[in-house]
Amino acid sequence: MIGYPTKKRKQQTANVSLQFNRRGMGLEEDINQSNAYFREMGIALIYKKPTPVQIVRVDYPMRSRAKIVEAYFKTPSTTDYNGIYRGKPIDFEAKQTSLKTLFPLKDVHEHQIEHLRRVLFHGGIGFLLLRFSYYDETYLIDAKKVIAKYDDPSTKSLTYVWVKQEGHLVPQSFQPRLHYLKIVDTLYFEEVTHDE
Amino acid sequence: MIGYPTKKRKQQTANVSLQFNRRGMGLEEDINQSNAYFREMGIALIYKKPTPVQIVRVDYPMRSRAKIVEAYFKTPSTTDYNGIYRGKPIDFEAKQTSLKTLFPLKDVHEHQIEHLRRVLFHGGIGFLLLRFSYYDETYLIDAKKVIAKYDDPSTKSLTYVWVKQEGHLVPQSFQPRLHYLKIVDTLYFEEVTHDE
Repeated sequence: MIGYPTKKRKQQTANVSLQFNRRGMGLEEDINQSNAYFREMGIALIYKKPTPVQIVRVDYPMRSRAKIVEAYFKTPSTTDYNGIYRGKPIDFEAKQTSLKTLFPLKDVHEHQIEHLRRVLFHGGIGFLLLRFSYYDETYLIDAKKVIAKYDDPSTKSLTYVWVKQEGHLVPQSFQPRLHYLKIVDTLYFEEVTHDE
Repeated sequence: MIGYPTKKRKQQTANVSLQFNRRGMGLEEDINQSNAYFREMGIALIYKKPTPVQIVRVDYPMRSRAKIVEAYFKTPSTTDYNGIYRGKPIDFEAKQTSLKTLFPLKDVHEHQIEHLRRVLFHGGIGFLLLRFSYYDETYLIDAKKVIAKYDDPSTKSLTYVWVKQEGHLVPQSFQPRLHYLKIVDTLYFEEVTHDE
């Protein structure tokens, strides 16, 4: 009578994730694809953390798996991405703006900044991946620089001009879409790369 | 008319998380408390990853925040805990058994083992925290040893005797409840600790 609920559910889910990715923009998808490539090739082990959700009510409809029927999005207490690269802890946040001239710093949660502060304190590699979608350009900006701007009470945003100067343009390709680890190599491992 | 919906919701949530913690047992709570202590004291930056949830349907009831009304628990593709300790990536899974003589290896997901394999490959510190709740004892077992057992087709479980031999009993106290980093110090940083 119920007829292949699993199959139906899967289709539904696919649609919804498409819808959600649009909110999450192209950047998140590009990073996820790049991380999957890095994992597959044994280059790095970096994951996006699951979206933190506060679960309020769960149903157990007849013999099927648990169904969450009431839950809310929580504010994340850390950055979205972390993992291991060349034996070092790596941790970053990704943001996107459609504005042409600046990225408003209020779009970064305060505890994400605090988290990056701690990443640096504990000897990890930390940065922000920032996309200016108008130019289709993604920049890696060292956490220290972002934190300094955040701590400066006279600064409300990162200007595009500043990001071009202080950040590093991430090479884009088909596979991986965003090769941000090339920037990490030059910035944090002090080695000469020839193929950039 | 609606009357403090936020407050009500908070109470509800608290009850539910209690209920969930019971499923998650004392071990998860002990680790979370210990990690909070380590973060607060600037000792380590280790978090539990949020439970991965597949979101199917979200409602936006009048002007209030988004409410997830259909979602399902997903099988995690990584371990539950990761972070940074003394400049090194740290990654582990926590399990508990009420059995007296063994821990069944089928209670560890295959991709969690695969993940730990990759953690070691990329130069991270990986292990399993295993609690035998009958004895109220928690052991740290190096990932390499757990993986070797997992790969051995004749082994279906970790026996209590083996864990006592090959693992390391984690010191328990009030604050932090589980000082597993003491074991990490001796195992992975090759330094003499006097106060164990």
